[in-house]
Amino acid sequence: MVIGFTITKEDGQSRARLGLLNTPHGTVQTPIFMPVGTQATVKTMTPGEVRDCGGELVLSNTYHLYLRPGHELVAEAGGLHKFMRWDGPILTDSGGFQVFSLGPLRKITDQGVTFRSHIDGSEHFLSPEKSMEIQMALGADVVMAFDECIPYPCNYEQAGVAMERTTRWAERCRKRHDRGDQALFGIIQGGMYRDLRLQSAAELAALDFPGYGIGGLSVGEPKPMMYEVLNYLVPAMPRNKPRYLMGVGSPDCLLEGVYRGVDMFDCVLPTRIARNGTVFTREGKLVVRNAEYARDFRPLDPECDCYTCRNFSRAYIRHLIKANEVLGIRLTTIHNLRFVLRLMENIREAIAGGYFVEYKDDYLRRFKLD
Amino acid sequence: MVIGFTITKEDGQSRARLGLLNTPHGTVQTPIFMPVGTQATVKTMTPGEVRDCGGELVLSNTYHLYLRPGHELVAEAGGLHKFMRWDGPILTDSGGFQVFSLGPLRKITDQGVTFRSHIDGSEHFLSPEKSMEIQMALGADVVMAFDECIPYPCNYEQAGVAMERTTRWAERCRKRHDRGDQALFGIIQGGMYRDLRLQSAAELAALDFPGYGIGGLSVGEPKPMMYEVLNYLVPAMPRNKPRYLMGVGSPDCLLEGVYRGVDMFDCVLPTRIARNGTVFTREGKLVVRNAEYARDFRPLDPECDCYTCRNFSRAYIRHLIKANEVLGIRLTTIHNLRFVLRLMENIREAIAGGYFVEYKDDYLRRFKLD
Repeated sequence: MVIGFTITKEDGQSRARLGLLNTPHGTVQTPIFMPVGTQATVKTMTPGEVRDCGGELVLSNTYHLYLRPGHELVAEAGGLHKFMRWDGPILTDSGGFQVFSLGPLRKITDQGVTFRSHIDGSEHFLSPEKSMEIQMALGADVVMAFDECIPYPCNYEQAGVAMERTTRWAERCRKRHDRGDQALFGIIQGGMYRDLRLQSAAELAALDFPGYGIGGLSVGEPKPMMYEVLNYLVPAMPRNKPRYLMGVGSPDCLLEGVYRGVDMFDCVLPTRIARNGTVFTREGKLVVRNAEYARDFRPLDPECDCYTCRNFSRAYIRHLIKANEVLGIRLTTIHNLRFVLRLMENIREAIAGGYFVEYKDDYLRRFKLD
Repeated sequence: MVIGFTITKEDGQSRARLGLLNTPHGTVQTPIFMPVGTQATVKTMTPGEVRDCGGELVLSNTYHLYLRPGHELVAEAGGLHKFMRWDGPILTDSGGFQVFSLGPLRKITDQGVTFRSHIDGSEHFLSPEKSMEIQMALGADVVMAFDECIPYPCNYEQAGVAMERTTRWAERCRKRHDRGDQALFGIIQGGMYRDLRLQSAAELAALDFPGYGIGGLSVGEPKPMMYEVLNYLVPAMPRNKPRYLMGVGSPDCLLEGVYRGVDMFDCVLPTRIARNGTVFTREGKLVVRNAEYARDFRPLDPECDCYTCRNFSRAYIRHLIKANEVLGIRLTTIHNLRFVLRLMENIREAIAGGYFVEYKDDYLRRFKLD
């Protein structure tokens, strides 16, 4: 087994747990948040800055890298780690979520998905086999099975068809995947339907993947609905395998996800809102580009230990963003990424110290999202 | 005298010289290239990165900071050093060059210049007195007199009128400037006319400024014409004061300027072309966004010691630039700035070692600009 996963502690009052994930590029602690480097770069950041923020495992996107610069070119460069100069572990998604998000630009059959590139409109075909070939060429430590993603809301029948296809595709992925230094995770689908989710979990568990993604959540449904799915789904997943809640990264969702037994998260949210001039503080979101911060010479978050908060004022960062200076979005990105990664550090400390539920409740009392 | 300037060595075979410029924020060696931080940031870079590239004295623009965020706000922040977190010396220009570049958007009288903001079209008035007030509020170590810049080509009469106004404005600047921790430099004008240049130099020398800018060069004239102006102008300038050739920063011009006795340079060129995907190499320019570098896994310049060249390939940087990733232009900016600053280090070493002219000739034989 290329991926080793060891649970080092289970919380007494929740499903939260501490673990160690061993990969060919090092061991990371879970629960973990994975910064997203869509196009082989965490937007605006150097690898060293990601590391300084506490980033340990980076996600990159198969769909984007397949289209540009192309997986063969990345392989020629010696693989994704070498190409982007990230020597820690990397996870690539399957491309499924991106091609399904293309809407009218794609056509699905059991064979796979035909779609048009968002860059130049050229036609492409992605299938379980093709996704494996691309991901093997990219050379991440963890690769994801090619799944069929459904929108929200979605009726029972469609959700069932997509879920069953996802299982068949997972089998095809397993069959095609043969790179010994990569771990292939299955992805559980089934929409917001309990029996479909449980069927998906059982069918994928039978295929004995070294880890499992939970797909199709955080796609527009109310948060309580997502939490409810986790409530019944997580206990149906293999206890000794990492559980990865895909596309989730808001501080409140991270806490609620860990509480329900999730080990891994990724999301563009912290870095995306940063580029729009919105940052996290201990109290919630702060739109630093707003006029009220023009003469505010305090750091973004007085409690933060990031490079940005140790050096620059809200007034300066607002000036940079208003003036379209790249440094502005660099500083907000550093802050938001550090904010989320520090939250994960604190969560792990809280689990280790036996006070996680108390920590979570206290955190959420003060942290308000509008 | 707030600025101390000591000449530590004069070259035997050229007008090149080594010096030390003492400022309230530290001593720097000359000849020096000053990175440009137009809007209180060297575009795309943190202060630490500028420092790592070898940057010691940063230039910022009065016109831009006056319009946004406003000099009062910068003063409220504790001055420009604190606002932008640059603890080394800073030089601000007078705003003259920018407002005169606005073309039809400005109107000049002896009183000053009325112009419209490039940001929101609002009307503003800049004069020698106003420029001093703004620059005193910003708080740089070196501030520049408000001068009248002329286009190239420009007829003799217009060049003469502007030059004489520049002298009158220089007197008004001296009168208004009363910040003891700032050095005010005069600016020599006179277009490409020898007698006007010599008159300007003499009139400004009589005002006994602690340093002198050479304005109105590198404005579109052929390079040999600029060198010819330097040939007769520099010997007419005070020997014991720093000479600052404004807006010049191409490697060949830096060598030719030092050769002719220039001590200080600034230019947006290295960082601007970097953002367009063009970098310097020992052989000349390289357009890394071109298709021929798609699978070129060598560094931008194999002889370079910068962060970019120590870590990343042309193929990766090209990918980033094609994909509009900010890291791409960050990496090219770091490289180009380091390239120019390393050239200045090598120039200083060559002067110290007594082989500057040989170094210059050898450099220019290999470095080809198209």
